[in-house]
Amino acid sequence: MTVANRSTSTPPTPVKLPAFFEEDRLTVDAHLEKLLPSENTQPSSIHQAMRYSVFAGGKRIRPILCLETARIFGDDVTAALHPACAIECIHTYSLIHDDLPALDNDDLRRGKPTSHKQFGEATAILAGDALLTLAFEVVASTPADAERRVAMLTEIATAAGTVNGMVGGQVADLEAEGKTVGKKMLEYIHRSKTAALIRASVTAGALCVGASKSDVARLRRFGENIGWAFQVTDDILDVEESSTALGKTAGKDIAQQKATYPAVYGLERSHEIANDLATRAIAELAPFEEKASRLRDIAEYLVLRRA
Amino acid sequence: MTVANRSTSTPPTPVKLPAFFEEDRLTVDAHLEKLLPSENTQPSSIHQAMRYSVFAGGKRIRPILCLETARIFGDDVTAALHPACAIECIHTYSLIHDDLPALDNDDLRRGKPTSHKQFGEATAILAGDALLTLAFEVVASTPADAERRVAMLTEIATAAGTVNGMVGGQVADLEAEGKTVGKKMLEYIHRSKTAALIRASVTAGALCVGASKSDVARLRRFGENIGWAFQVTDDILDVEESSTALGKTAGKDIAQQKATYPAVYGLERSHEIANDLATRAIAELAPFEEKASRLRDIAEYLVLRRA
Repeated sequence: MTVANRSTSTPPTPVKLPAFFEEDRLTVDAHLEKLLPSENTQPSSIHQAMRYSVFAGGKRIRPILCLETARIFGDDVTAALHPACAIECIHTYSLIHDDLPALDNDDLRRGKPTSHKQFGEATAILAGDALLTLAFEVVASTPADAERRVAMLTEIATAAGTVNGMVGGQVADLEAEGKTVGKKMLEYIHRSKTAALIRASVTAGALCVGASKSDVARLRRFGENIGWAFQVTDDILDVEESSTALGKTAGKDIAQQKATYPAVYGLERSHEIANDLATRAIAELAPFEEKASRLRDIAEYLVLRRA
Repeated sequence: MTVANRSTSTPPTPVKLPAFFEEDRLTVDAHLEKLLPSENTQPSSIHQAMRYSVFAGGKRIRPILCLETARIFGDDVTAALHPACAIECIHTYSLIHDDLPALDNDDLRRGKPTSHKQFGEATAILAGDALLTLAFEVVASTPADAERRVAMLTEIATAAGTVNGMVGGQVADLEAEGKTVGKKMLEYIHRSKTAALIRASVTAGALCVGASKSDVARLRRFGENIGWAFQVTDDILDVEESSTALGKTAGKDIAQQKATYPAVYGLERSHEIANDLATRAIAELAPFEEKASRLRDIAEYLVLRRA
């Protein structure tokens, strides 16, 4: 199976979210609602700030990937809700800190004031710290064998860290601004900044429901490639789409002279790269046959989406 | 056993560090050296910043408490090095973020430029994030039973979190500045901001070497009380000692109108409270007899120290 190539010269076909996305999103939101301390829990300001950003309208792509990976192995995906929500907390912390004046200095995120605009910088920094901390507490509480919980914790912490992980990618991304970046560094940035945590979402979904070592390894490759394709697509959309469609400032990568696939490879080639990566990702799912049909739908959506 | 009360009117007797502190400190530093990515690991700027703050001359009180708690149960404390170093990473991250302009806005820490002064705010924020993330990766790698590793992770994440944990205490501390604070809030701040992570250091030391539930519970009470006493003593030293002795700006609590024990109870009563807490902590160690002699030495040092 390959992902349909889309030429930049033909008008894009709007790609709808698969119907199960909305159902999963509601399940994830209900679980996040339970996991996050209430706004009345003292000190209330930090809990308000944590909730503000977690419930700011994210698409929940990472948790949905986690849940739908678990579903390959059975209908009960309750255990996967823990790593799914933990990873969404990590994703949210990274956005809060990324938006800070010292980093990307963004005032708006998904059409709403960013955390530091709403609560001040001190609270925004601490809310990010708190979400990262809570994430590990939540993974540790997963209803799964202790060995599996430790394996998930290692996967997730590594993916969020500095050596081929999210923070490492963010640092390299910041350092690359305004510089001519080679293909190798561009790949490092995208795989570390974005693909690592998406890979961990998929791997954790498999681990918590008892998948075999070889299935975990196969799904890890799926997650890595689809996460990479996702970031290449993000770069493309930043060029092709309007701010209204994206819900964030379009054209920002060019303005900030970010290291992106369109900047290094051009748009046409970037589309091909995203499609190739998605095709390679989907090929890993073959042995799971129909059980992986939802993961295939997500993979296609992630490279054909317009926002 | 009670801790000798010291009147504020007599000149303080200098209290020396117990000799084993230096030995433990070197062991902890050697392990941190192995755990932290080298300065040459890409992206090097973040690894330089992480190492700069971790090796800035901390006394290693938390890791030493962790190691010496493990030593009650046997001579091999190798397993305890993992949570010990992880907690030092968490402590270091909290100092880096606390020093930021949006929080305490400190230029110096232990006589050296703070992280954001040395590396810029963006790197300082990310270095803190990275140390917190690495901490959980390190705990997950402890050579101990998986159940015990998960228990340590939960203890440590809770102690670092917002509900009666470190971040909650920091938030309450910031919010209390310039306000009249009641005794209950003062207690909440000190127990959350400082005692929680010290309690986790002790508890993790016991957990990783297989201590029984009742021993873990007893040592948790020791850790809670000695951690609380430690923060009350910090408040006292901020009033009584010079900046040179402390290696940081003295009198800062008063200048910032922080919620402190001397401000609420006066100096004499604050000394009594610190001594009472230390005495209660030490009483918990009675059943361990001579095996806990080093923990007793640490407890006494923590309330009798002058820096």
